[in-house]
Amino acid sequence: MNIKEVIAGISPLDNDFFDSAQKRLDNLTKPQGSLGRLEEIARRLVAIYRDGMPEIPGKVVFTFAGDHGVAEEGVSAYPSEVTRQMVFNFLNGGAGINVLARHAGTEVVVVDIGVDYDFDDVKGLVKRKVVRGTKNMVKGPAMTSEEAVACLNVGIELAGSYYDMGYRMFATGEMGIANTTPSSAVASVITGKPVSEVTGRGTGIGEDALKRKIEVVEKAIENNRPNPDDPVDLLSKIGGAEIGGIAGLCLGAASLGVPVVVDGFISTAGALIAFKLNPLVGDYLFASHNSQERGHMVMLDYMGLRPILDLDLRLGEGTGAALAMTILDAALKIYREMATFGEAGVTDELVN
Amino acid sequence: MNIKEVIAGISPLDNDFFDSAQKRLDNLTKPQGSLGRLEEIARRLVAIYRDGMPEIPGKVVFTFAGDHGVAEEGVSAYPSEVTRQMVFNFLNGGAGINVLARHAGTEVVVVDIGVDYDFDDVKGLVKRKVVRGTKNMVKGPAMTSEEAVACLNVGIELAGSYYDMGYRMFATGEMGIANTTPSSAVASVITGKPVSEVTGRGTGIGEDALKRKIEVVEKAIENNRPNPDDPVDLLSKIGGAEIGGIAGLCLGAASLGVPVVVDGFISTAGALIAFKLNPLVGDYLFASHNSQERGHMVMLDYMGLRPILDLDLRLGEGTGAALAMTILDAALKIYREMATFGEAGVTDELVN
Repeated sequence: MNIKEVIAGISPLDNDFFDSAQKRLDNLTKPQGSLGRLEEIARRLVAIYRDGMPEIPGKVVFTFAGDHGVAEEGVSAYPSEVTRQMVFNFLNGGAGINVLARHAGTEVVVVDIGVDYDFDDVKGLVKRKVVRGTKNMVKGPAMTSEEAVACLNVGIELAGSYYDMGYRMFATGEMGIANTTPSSAVASVITGKPVSEVTGRGTGIGEDALKRKIEVVEKAIENNRPNPDDPVDLLSKIGGAEIGGIAGLCLGAASLGVPVVVDGFISTAGALIAFKLNPLVGDYLFASHNSQERGHMVMLDYMGLRPILDLDLRLGEGTGAALAMTILDAALKIYREMATFGEAGVTDELVN
Repeated sequence: MNIKEVIAGISPLDNDFFDSAQKRLDNLTKPQGSLGRLEEIARRLVAIYRDGMPEIPGKVVFTFAGDHGVAEEGVSAYPSEVTRQMVFNFLNGGAGINVLARHAGTEVVVVDIGVDYDFDDVKGLVKRKVVRGTKNMVKGPAMTSEEAVACLNVGIELAGSYYDMGYRMFATGEMGIANTTPSSAVASVITGKPVSEVTGRGTGIGEDALKRKIEVVEKAIENNRPNPDDPVDLLSKIGGAEIGGIAGLCLGAASLGVPVVVDGFISTAGALIAFKLNPLVGDYLFASHNSQERGHMVMLDYMGLRPILDLDLRLGEGTGAALAMTILDAALKIYREMATFGEAGVTDELVN
């Protein structure tokens, strides 16, 4: 299937599933609605799976890694070699995402989609390199259109192959020094908000570096003139490879009826590109958390998504998404395992 | 030990443990502070346990059940017999707390501290009945002072016996038709806020019943004149038994150096009584979530506690606390399991 077919193959959710899920929830031994967002999550999962009693799904976090030419502008607190160093940390199980994935009972798949380093064959690393780092978006397009399409395809294909292996819940994650910078550009171009309102401190830069970062994003948009109504044009001119991979994953998952738990700022920029290609994608997305990175909520609001957690996270990698997966599991277990009023012999006649 | 000794035996946390925990956190392979509240939780757990590398603790949720004479004023959506019916539901494993406790890997202990029903000996039920329902607080004191002290002692003794069995993380929960009503009274008397600002819809009453509920709480305070500086006086006059049990559990846990994850509105009223007896208790409390019940945040603000989750829950039983325990576990795992920069060979020299 080509990208257009995938995009066109995304179905809206069916209200009948929301209604039947609501009926069951209202019949469980609790005051109606008293489990709040757990009930909301359960309803939507029932509708996404088109299954009145969904199983607890097999889960996988895709952590896409890529480097960014724009790092040479001094927009990050860390040097670019940290991207590959962290890939090795992921493969050794020592990073935040590894710990939280074990906690959440989810696999982690590390995808080299754009790292500026040649990895050997290593267990756990999916080698789908499209670029060896993007080009500096201030000086010209970060990628060619062909490369942007190739990034989307990596995500779409991964969704398909993990679907075939039986996984039914995906999460996004990423690693790429400087990747909040193109994410801010994506956020500004698609939502129409000024760059200064969607650009933050990333890994923790100081005041001067933040000013420079804002200028860099503004200059990149000015020089490249990405078309806000053509997300592939935007992705190619701004990058990065991992943002494209995440966008593709969201598209592929939605077309297959698999929910995607979206991590923080960068992941949300990827999801936003997918959303712009087909807003129906939004029905399949869960916003895992409200990142500390300035501009995250702007993108979530644009897509009508409400974050599940609010824990001042700003690490990325998929850490917030892995944690949120535990809440999705909890919601499904409530839906599946709680006794009904009838089963438990509890009165459900109200007196007030 | 009598209650006064328990209260006097609560130690402040030691800043040295916060400092050493911070050092380790800053040396893990992530930008400093980027795991936000997970880091804050880990630091505090290190200080509570007085252990530089705490184990993942054995966990137990105490769900205290009691009835309330004030139910006869029509303040709840459900009739009083639902309290005992729900106790049976807990014992059969079909309630929300059972599902979320299994999810969180925690035991649930159901404590009959004040149900208006005589239970047989049933596995999983701790029979520590102090009253067979409280008296209607509008017409006079809900309990005698001796009964209030007995309720506190039940909580203190449970903390001690589960400590002896090796459990090192407690959570509070409750079941008791009409128990948001005395909780609102506790909130108003201790925080000094008007009753109308700390009284909500509980299990879901309508507008007229809410008005009546506010009048009932106001009348109970007016008729009993509880002394806001004497929490035991307040507990005896307002009730309920389960609120006293929760207060005792918080005191006992704090005196033993065990963290307590506090559930929603009613649990927080119990914690508030403990806090008023000795504000050092607050160092050992984690606020699990921001309940939809009006007035919850007022009490949390009074104690300086910030809720971990915000999922529009209002079920009680300990459900929010069980879910939050999974976040505390995640925080401890991050602290224990992440690689340091040195171990992982990741550069920690900043460029910006």
